[in-house]
Amino acid sequence: MSTAKLLLHCPDRPGILAEVTGFITVNKGNIIYLDQYVDHTENIFFMRIEWELATFLVPKEKIEDYFATLYAQKYGMNFRLYFSDVKPRMAIFVSKMSHCIYDILARYTAGEWNVEIPLIISNHPDLQHVGERFGIPFHVFPITKENKAGQEVREMELLKEYRISFIVLARYMQIVSEDMIKAYPDKIINIHHSFLPAFIGAKPYHAAFDRGVKIIGATSHYVTAELDTGPIIEQDVVRITHKDSIPDLINKGKDLEKIVLSRAVQKHIERKVLAYKNKTVIFS
Amino acid sequence: MSTAKLLLHCPDRPGILAEVTGFITVNKGNIIYLDQYVDHTENIFFMRIEWELATFLVPKEKIEDYFATLYAQKYGMNFRLYFSDVKPRMAIFVSKMSHCIYDILARYTAGEWNVEIPLIISNHPDLQHVGERFGIPFHVFPITKENKAGQEVREMELLKEYRISFIVLARYMQIVSEDMIKAYPDKIINIHHSFLPAFIGAKPYHAAFDRGVKIIGATSHYVTAELDTGPIIEQDVVRITHKDSIPDLINKGKDLEKIVLSRAVQKHIERKVLAYKNKTVIFS
Amino acid sequence: MSTAKLLLHCPDRPGILAEVTGFITVNKGNIIYLDQYVDHTENIFFMRIEWELATFLVPKEKIEDYFATLYAQKYGMNFRLYFSDVKPRMAIFVSKMSHCIYDILARYTAGEWNVEIPLIISNHPDLQHVGERFGIPFHVFPITKENKAGQEVREMELLKEYRISFIVLARYMQIVSEDMIKAYPDKIINIHHSFLPAFIGAKPYHAAFDRGVKIIGATSHYVTAELDTGPIIEQDVVRITHKDSIPDLINKGKDLEKIVLSRAVQKHIERKVLAYKNKTVIFS
Amino acid sequence: MSTAKLLLHCPDRPGILAEVTGFITVNKGNIIYLDQYVDHTENIFFMRIEWELATFLVPKEKIEDYFATLYAQKYGMNFRLYFSDVKPRMAIFVSKMSHCIYDILARYTAGEWNVEIPLIISNHPDLQHVGERFGIPFHVFPITKENKAGQEVREMELLKEYRISFIVLARYMQIVSEDMIKAYPDKIINIHHSFLPAFIGAKPYHAAFDRGVKIIGATSHYVTAELDTGPIIEQDVVRITHKDSIPDLINKGKDLEKIVLSRAVQKHIERKVLAYKNKTVIFS
Repeated sequence: MSTAKLLLHCPDRPGILAEVTGFITVNKGNIIYLDQYVDHTENIFFMRIEWELATFLVPKEKIEDYFATLYAQKYGMNFRLYFSDVKPRMAIFVSKMSHCIYDILARYTAGEWNVEIPLIISNHPDLQHVGERFGIPFHVFPITKENKAGQEVREMELLKEYRISFIVLARYMQIVSEDMIKAYPDKIINIHHSFLPAFIGAKPYHAAFDRGVKIIGATSHYVTAELDTGPIIEQDVVRITHKDSIPDLINKGKDLEKIVLSRAVQKHIERKVLAYKNKTVIFS
Repeated sequence: MSTAKLLLHCPDRPGILAEVTGFITVNKGNIIYLDQYVDHTENIFFMRIEWELATFLVPKEKIEDYFATLYAQKYGMNFRLYFSDVKPRMAIFVSKMSHCIYDILARYTAGEWNVEIPLIISNHPDLQHVGERFGIPFHVFPITKENKAGQEVREMELLKEYRISFIVLARYMQIVSEDMIKAYPDKIINIHHSFLPAFIGAKPYHAAFDRGVKIIGATSHYVTAELDTGPIIEQDVVRITHKDSIPDLINKGKDLEKIVLSRAVQKHIERKVLAYKNKTVIFS
Repeated sequence: MSTAKLLLHCPDRPGILAEVTGFITVNKGNIIYLDQYVDHTENIFFMRIEWELATFLVPKEKIEDYFATLYAQKYGMNFRLYFSDVKPRMAIFVSKMSHCIYDILARYTAGEWNVEIPLIISNHPDLQHVGERFGIPFHVFPITKENKAGQEVREMELLKEYRISFIVLARYMQIVSEDMIKAYPDKIINIHHSFLPAFIGAKPYHAAFDRGVKIIGATSHYVTAELDTGPIIEQDVVRITHKDSIPDLINKGKDLEKIVLSRAVQKHIERKVLAYKNKTVIFS
Repeated sequence: MSTAKLLLHCPDRPGILAEVTGFITVNKGNIIYLDQYVDHTENIFFMRIEWELATFLVPKEKIEDYFATLYAQKYGMNFRLYFSDVKPRMAIFVSKMSHCIYDILARYTAGEWNVEIPLIISNHPDLQHVGERFGIPFHVFPITKENKAGQEVREMELLKEYRISFIVLARYMQIVSEDMIKAYPDKIINIHHSFLPAFIGAKPYHAAFDRGVKIIGATSHYVTAELDTGPIIEQDVVRITHKDSIPDLINKGKDLEKIVLSRAVQKHIERKVLAYKNKTVIFS
């Protein structure tokens, strides 16, 4: 059943909820999901609502315009409208480690996610065989200091050609440049192998080992210009002991990384993440 | 049943385990606990062993000397010997928040811990009533920039007078000076209300809120000269969402803080913590 | 600031949310909290809404009547209305173990909960001293097979006399009779020391040990006529290993029990629990 | 570097640890791992020890005989000896769900496990493509009430032919018959999609939903004759809310299942699991 999904935020005022639900109900839309939240500190109203289109009286292609004119203007809303029958198109960036990409492709192949994955990009050829196993084009762009800018231009051409709507960095061991980040705002999902903001940057498991922490973590976040500081989508942790060596941490961490990244990607695909002021609202 | 507990570490060499267990067994000590661990990176052997004294042939007061002479010298061991019938004496330092001290005193009063708590010290009078409820002397030392050094001298006199063997900072909102830290090395246990090393210093819940993390934590550690960087004994975390305000974080965090602190204190009382190179070995 | 809290459920129909929020907004109530949820399997709409009374045009004492007449009838609603300035009155039932009652009274004394605790009832005198420490009347009703019915009648008289609105069984090691359960429907909160529905009944830690589980748990639930099968409010778990003896499980479990019970009690006090068909909706 | 791994248990007596470590040390074996544990209730000593063979004076093929003669007899030991250069050979049994087998094969292909996987067996053809993607023979044995005994005979012939040392039921939706269980004692690892002993048998997520639990789990265990009651190797849980439908539980549970199963399989491969009296000792 085809549905519309509307995510919005605006200054909180009485009546918004009633008006938005009224718009849908009056026009014979069957609401199947509603989650809202008010940030009382900032006085911002956040909402996600989903309704069935079958009986909805407003034609699909006019909903955005009607909603903008009737409500968004009036309330100063920032909103996005999605349709369940339009699948987002996702590119995976990898380097040499396979645990995250396998986890993603296993879900994809099993049909768990409403997404298309037409493209894998890597700075190394090592995981070419993964693309082949799952029948997904795998493009290698070796990166050096000298060629980085040029290679990213070519990558972005490819992303356009494949009409990619968002990017997943599945342990891609390269810093993405600002141009690409600007082109995909809140649309590049990274997995960092630490419990951010602890252990920003390279070799977080080594740093965790040296500090003697009793728990390690992984963090999935949208990529912003500053390293490892973008809006956090999901985090999780696992307990360790003094007996765990650095290879043990890496091994335990891999399970965290892939699950945390996949949870974040799933939330993104389901249109349940709203980034706002370097944080995220994660709808239920 | 009275027992001896021996904690040691030394450069790893073949035969240590056999010799130490041999010493106890040959002298008719019944080993009721043994945990050992080798750090293969640093090549250090760690061990905790506990045996019943009833049938042990070496007189209690001579064990330390014998062990030092026969084994510690030979292997370059660093060791500590404890007896279960000598209760450690603990001082609690508090300020205004009561959740940690109540948790400690509830366990103490129920007889859960093999410890004496003869003394509470505070920089504020607010929790005087807690001392009264549980019948424990409560001394107030108001601290200002000017009087801090002098007040700490008086506190340390009191600690000596009460023969305090270790100190628990139960949300004591004052930085302890270096003199006191030196007097109680690896014997001052603090609870920091964040998942260290994230959010060192003041107001970690505010910092966690601002960063938009999805999990908050608490960390119990031995106090060293540098703030919030001593050997970590225990950590734990709890999941939060965008709906949690700063007061919600504080409220959820309190449960973490008290449980994490009490677990660390219990491990310390049971002589199961061995601090080494700014980390801890936590015996099972 | 005084607020009204409304919890309701009814068959789901379009427009309920708009009408209820409309009723409050039109009458100048400032909504500070709203959480709703639709069970699409059973087609039931659930809602919790809270608004400030200061500017609300409908007099406090007429709200219930107005709401019943205007909306509850129309939609077939089941609803409860609470006011933040009316504190629920809670009785604690205990036996011999003190960890749960200390945890509750520590929060109560620190002013964390909007509740009155005028009364403790026990079937043993062992924890009389806890009542005294916190200045709360402590009534002992020894229970035998023969006197049980009579003692419960006297307990219920006392509950009435103290105008008790809900009961917390803080490790009360007696089965409460059906008469008392009927008198306090969804108003008796129990803590069971297992991860229900595993290990129903007596000695769950022994059963967990025998089964060799790797995780133990605790469950807080409303008491119903059938033992340990009422609506679950909160659960949590902790990891164990083969090294943990039964006393270790009991010791680790105590922390779970008190935290899980206190979380459940807090949710109940905040009016965030709605029991329905032997399950609970826990509002955010 | 080739190593020997020795797992043993026997009635606890003084000196065992010293003798076993002595045997290895005296014969120039370099011990790289030792973990031991005494069950003081049952008075059983458990031990796992690993040492390098390069310098060991006893020839590899004679170790078992020497150890049996010199120590196992004397102490009434039950022991197993493994060599790191002998890879266990694992068969995967699946039905229609792919999440567990993908997780296993991703680790296998990445070289994370010291194992051979020469064979996949299924009662349905649905996952044939998974075998093909990873280049592993996939044999389909459709099972009906009538043909079950015969098909299992053929499966067991295949297991012998491929010299399979242990079996992983990766969501294999068939009860394995007693003959096969007897042929592979403590060598068939199952994943059950509940927190055992809660929700034994079919459709545990439906049962969890009906009971209204707040946490769901998964359990990996060795298969014994009685359904879902064998020795537990690993368990884990995830929090749910009233908002989670049965499909949500299934979706969240899948992540648990695959991680819990893979952790159990890894422990088994590393020879860190010792099953004893329907429980497991999991060495560190």
